[in-house]
Amino acid sequence: MQIVKGDGFVPGPLLARVNSPADLKNLTELEIEQLCNELRQYIIDLVSVKGGHFGASLGVVELTVALHHVFNTPVDQLVWDVGHQAYGHKILTGRRDNFHTNRKYKGLSGFPKRSESEYDTFGVGHSSTSISAALGMAVASDYLNQKDKHHIAVIGDGAMTAGLAFEGLNHAGSLHTNLLVVLNDNCMSIDPNVGALKEYLTDITTSHTYNNVKDEVWKQLGKLSNFGNNARQIVSKVQLALKTSLLKQSNMFESLKFRYFGPIDGHDVTRLVQVMKDLKDIPGPKILHVLTKKGKGYKFSEEGNETIWHAPGLFNKDTGEIVKVTPKEPQPPKYQDVFGYTIVELAEQNKKIMGITPAMPSGSSLNIMMKAMPHRAFDVGIAEQHAVTFSAGLATQGLIPFCNIYSSFMQRAYDQVIHDVALQNLHVIFCLDRGGLVGADGPTHHGTFDLAFFRCIPNMVVASPMNEQELRNMMYTAQLEKNAVPFSIRYPRGNGVMVEWKTPFEEIQIGKGRKVKDGKDVAILTIGHIGNNVTKAIQQLADNKIDAAHYDMRFVKPLDEELLHQVFASHKKVITVEDGCIQGGFGSAVLEFMADNSYNAQVKRLGVPDEFIEHGEPSELYEEVGLSPKRIAEETIQFLSATKKIMAG
Amino acid sequence: MQIVKGDGFVPGPLLARVNSPADLKNLTELEIEQLCNELRQYIIDLVSVKGGHFGASLGVVELTVALHHVFNTPVDQLVWDVGHQAYGHKILTGRRDNFHTNRKYKGLSGFPKRSESEYDTFGVGHSSTSISAALGMAVASDYLNQKDKHHIAVIGDGAMTAGLAFEGLNHAGSLHTNLLVVLNDNCMSIDPNVGALKEYLTDITTSHTYNNVKDEVWKQLGKLSNFGNNARQIVSKVQLALKTSLLKQSNMFESLKFRYFGPIDGHDVTRLVQVMKDLKDIPGPKILHVLTKKGKGYKFSEEGNETIWHAPGLFNKDTGEIVKVTPKEPQPPKYQDVFGYTIVELAEQNKKIMGITPAMPSGSSLNIMMKAMPHRAFDVGIAEQHAVTFSAGLATQGLIPFCNIYSSFMQRAYDQVIHDVALQNLHVIFCLDRGGLVGADGPTHHGTFDLAFFRCIPNMVVASPMNEQELRNMMYTAQLEKNAVPFSIRYPRGNGVMVEWKTPFEEIQIGKGRKVKDGKDVAILTIGHIGNNVTKAIQQLADNKIDAAHYDMRFVKPLDEELLHQVFASHKKVITVEDGCIQGGFGSAVLEFMADNSYNAQVKRLGVPDEFIEHGEPSELYEEVGLSPKRIAEETIQFLSATKKIMAG
Repeated sequence: MQIVKGDGFVPGPLLARVNSPADLKNLTELEIEQLCNELRQYIIDLVSVKGGHFGASLGVVELTVALHHVFNTPVDQLVWDVGHQAYGHKILTGRRDNFHTNRKYKGLSGFPKRSESEYDTFGVGHSSTSISAALGMAVASDYLNQKDKHHIAVIGDGAMTAGLAFEGLNHAGSLHTNLLVVLNDNCMSIDPNVGALKEYLTDITTSHTYNNVKDEVWKQLGKLSNFGNNARQIVSKVQLALKTSLLKQSNMFESLKFRYFGPIDGHDVTRLVQVMKDLKDIPGPKILHVLTKKGKGYKFSEEGNETIWHAPGLFNKDTGEIVKVTPKEPQPPKYQDVFGYTIVELAEQNKKIMGITPAMPSGSSLNIMMKAMPHRAFDVGIAEQHAVTFSAGLATQGLIPFCNIYSSFMQRAYDQVIHDVALQNLHVIFCLDRGGLVGADGPTHHGTFDLAFFRCIPNMVVASPMNEQELRNMMYTAQLEKNAVPFSIRYPRGNGVMVEWKTPFEEIQIGKGRKVKDGKDVAILTIGHIGNNVTKAIQQLADNKIDAAHYDMRFVKPLDEELLHQVFASHKKVITVEDGCIQGGFGSAVLEFMADNSYNAQVKRLGVPDEFIEHGEPSELYEEVGLSPKRIAEETIQFLSATKKIMAG
Repeated sequence: MQIVKGDGFVPGPLLARVNSPADLKNLTELEIEQLCNELRQYIIDLVSVKGGHFGASLGVVELTVALHHVFNTPVDQLVWDVGHQAYGHKILTGRRDNFHTNRKYKGLSGFPKRSESEYDTFGVGHSSTSISAALGMAVASDYLNQKDKHHIAVIGDGAMTAGLAFEGLNHAGSLHTNLLVVLNDNCMSIDPNVGALKEYLTDITTSHTYNNVKDEVWKQLGKLSNFGNNARQIVSKVQLALKTSLLKQSNMFESLKFRYFGPIDGHDVTRLVQVMKDLKDIPGPKILHVLTKKGKGYKFSEEGNETIWHAPGLFNKDTGEIVKVTPKEPQPPKYQDVFGYTIVELAEQNKKIMGITPAMPSGSSLNIMMKAMPHRAFDVGIAEQHAVTFSAGLATQGLIPFCNIYSSFMQRAYDQVIHDVALQNLHVIFCLDRGGLVGADGPTHHGTFDLAFFRCIPNMVVASPMNEQELRNMMYTAQLEKNAVPFSIRYPRGNGVMVEWKTPFEEIQIGKGRKVKDGKDVAILTIGHIGNNVTKAIQQLADNKIDAAHYDMRFVKPLDEELLHQVFASHKKVITVEDGCIQGGFGSAVLEFMADNSYNAQVKRLGVPDEFIEHGEPSELYEEVGLSPKRIAEETIQFLSATKKIMAG
């Protein structure tokens, strides 16, 4: 390890001199190559020790250097799609010495972020926004008469499958603004990319295409030699005719009125620089197809599993060994794995069950079912909207799809949930993974709005388990024929609380909560896994002689009104706790119940405040927003003391 | 008019015998042609008198007859995209005699609807869902071993521009299920279709394409005759080589691994039948490109403006004259036109303002700006996601986009609003048209969830005007530099209340409501245009000796806390009124304020109940959900009497 002092990682001699892209402008070809090597090494040094995303950034080292060398950033607007791959970009744009704080609490964001740097033109995290955003910038430059400005969207082949990217292409192709789309084709999302577009890109790359037509014709011509001397001349003419009439439509991107260039080797930085310089002079929308390899240039990631090396955690950079911390005692499983194993168990019993994920097989653990039952589990690509409407289609035929989408990505399929599933009251089960504050991925990935935006949808069941057993029982309940309604189950990223998690299935009546603990001083109502923080808080409260009751409501919708009547009949002080947004969520549902039933208890709602929460360890973030056990206990004490005054006053 | 009795319209002799698609099976070619004529005439007869969508259904008469003749519906699954064009389908599938109730309260839906008929395989209203839904059905059939079943999505070229359609194509192309996509290409959305795809489809249609390559080459060959006898033979060989190597990629849909057929004349029913019969034998994903004309076969719509004839209202079928009711006295303008004229006024003063609509220039009245300032107003096609992210891109460059999207369509861009605009705190102004219950379009189009799903977004201002003046002042306020935040303004479809609407601009402080009227018995808090129903209700209450105060809150977020403190300090009985969903909306926001500030008034929330509301006249629907002036007055009286008992008890 090249650590010399503190968190100081030592950059190579050239990289050490790059404090902004201006320092790249006058480098020679050889120096540029060297810089690429140093940048790659710096990323390896740092990520192996500090963690973070790895494969994507290694794959675009040459692309990153070439872009900043050729274009006049930050005047020229460079938009990275998703942003996992922007580590090199950050290091070259004045953030090298801070980069060790990447993804740490109060440190640099793991994604481009406008508030962090003028080089980060557009904040990202979710995929496929770059073309639309860059087009907006290009249209603005056009309108503002800044005709020389360039606008570059760098988008992966995985991100290209999302509808938003297509919508952007369709609009861009009909305008004549200065837009360059760099298609970074590495055949991967986090998992291997899927879909027809991927196959098409592979076709382009491997042979008979647009660019190779000439070769093809000439090859063909060889076989025609017996036709005599005129053959070449004839073919040349025919070829010209075809080119004019046909080739314009022979490429999918040209169909959309982009000029297409490539594919070129994305690891040949000299060639990249040359091509980009040429492209600067070509006006209008254009696409540069660049072939890269995720994890390029580091032996172990190049040879290893690309999904694992997407974000490997810590590793020994010399041996490629990924650091695994073996816990001293058995740990509870991840909710993801409970989902993954449980859906297979249920699907074995119920032949109607199908599994759907939009590009998150490993993240959601649906890959367990995809392996066990390949014909019943689908990765549909980065395409949340399609995932939901496709599930609705399956449901119309009597099948029971479990559609697993991260909470924050479900925002992309909101209309499909309302319009295609709930309105038709179809039996689709939504598993909302990554509910609550997710940690290092930060504000783009926190799943904090789902309880609010799902509970206003008619017909929708909104459930959230407090532990593994409840998750299993909710999944079991949701697939029962008698419960054939739109059903959502929301759980967090990471570990649950039950080492012995594989409990027998038991139906939970829809809309039934449970009392976890009696208590006379205050009733605390919780939804989902955050209830475990309340369990701990209640122990701390007991030390303060406060006797709190705890109710695990399990359903935000329908609410357990019977249980709530009990609560409000016996308690004048009630606290609601959720790891979702404070407006419109679970706590508001309780207030609505209270108003509708003319109760007038004092209610304190604890939840994620009305602001975007930054990144950090979940424990740091829950502390910050007041949802750690300690903070919940403190809030409770404060609430009881304040309400005492109100009652007295 | 061929009305004989009651609502009975007289179908032609063949159509009169068609009670289900089974009755189409044995028709001869000539009979099929006659049936098309009769079906078209029946639609003209009916829509001219009863109103509804017109152009789209006329355009697919032949397609509809051919589909039901060739395919074994309802076993074969036929999915209509959007559904405006499904009138013929409804008439042929057992709903002829009820069709006069189309779009009327308690009558047939204007869209396909699963609960209405087994022939309506998938409920629609929003566009671009058909491919995903039909693919789900096809995958289900495959899994259920129903290999002979066909699955047909009929989608317009306008709907094809939405990302969801592309996501569906991308997935479908990688599977081998029995899916036929019929691309109904009429170059139109409601307004003329836009974007690169449209240009591409025009290219395909007009000349040099895939299907015409052969002709092109042979033509070229004519000019090569001086090369002697071998020329044709040579070219033939070259052509074959090219075909194998190149043509596979020469069509955009083939790029996505669909087999492409067409384009064919969608008004030649004999040819349609023939081609569809052939396609039945071809497995896997395939696309049939059909050229149609909106309004086909009716002189006045064929020759007239297609946007106007999309849904012309009532008209004299003999003269083509559209019935215009001239009011006796000046009427208030539509909110849409207030928006349309006001944005032009503002844009003349503020050069940074831009206008964006996803395919609704006439519906939103942004067409006024598109005409006045073509370089500053954009129709981006049916692409709500892109509309928002594109707006965000514009905003990064210091421009101020007004992004106008119907409330229910905004559900499609929810993630983009959160992730691309609010998280970056960009100055994008959302005008949410069609807030509340929209009327005849029904549950797919009601804008009832927006207050709930927008108010949980950090940084977002959520405003709604009670009249034209407030709309203008909110638009004025939103574009001020000092208010450079995400700002939403929500208003309903149709007329406002001010004949003299063109009032001078005046800033409204963000988060400031207003007292409309004092009153001692109850305080009624309203948001937006529905406040006018409360004004009327309060007059009725006065007749009952009830003195109600009225507050037009204007902002759901931020709430006017100062005003609310006044309200709760002086009132123990409060009613909130909104034409949005009862869960999580404006009323809940008031409850949250009350809980957070330890008020314990009795609060009754009036809003749209937790169910999907069917179609009908807005007045019928508002009566049904309890939001008509009369119902609001009744609810108020009941609330006051019930709370009196509670207080007494």
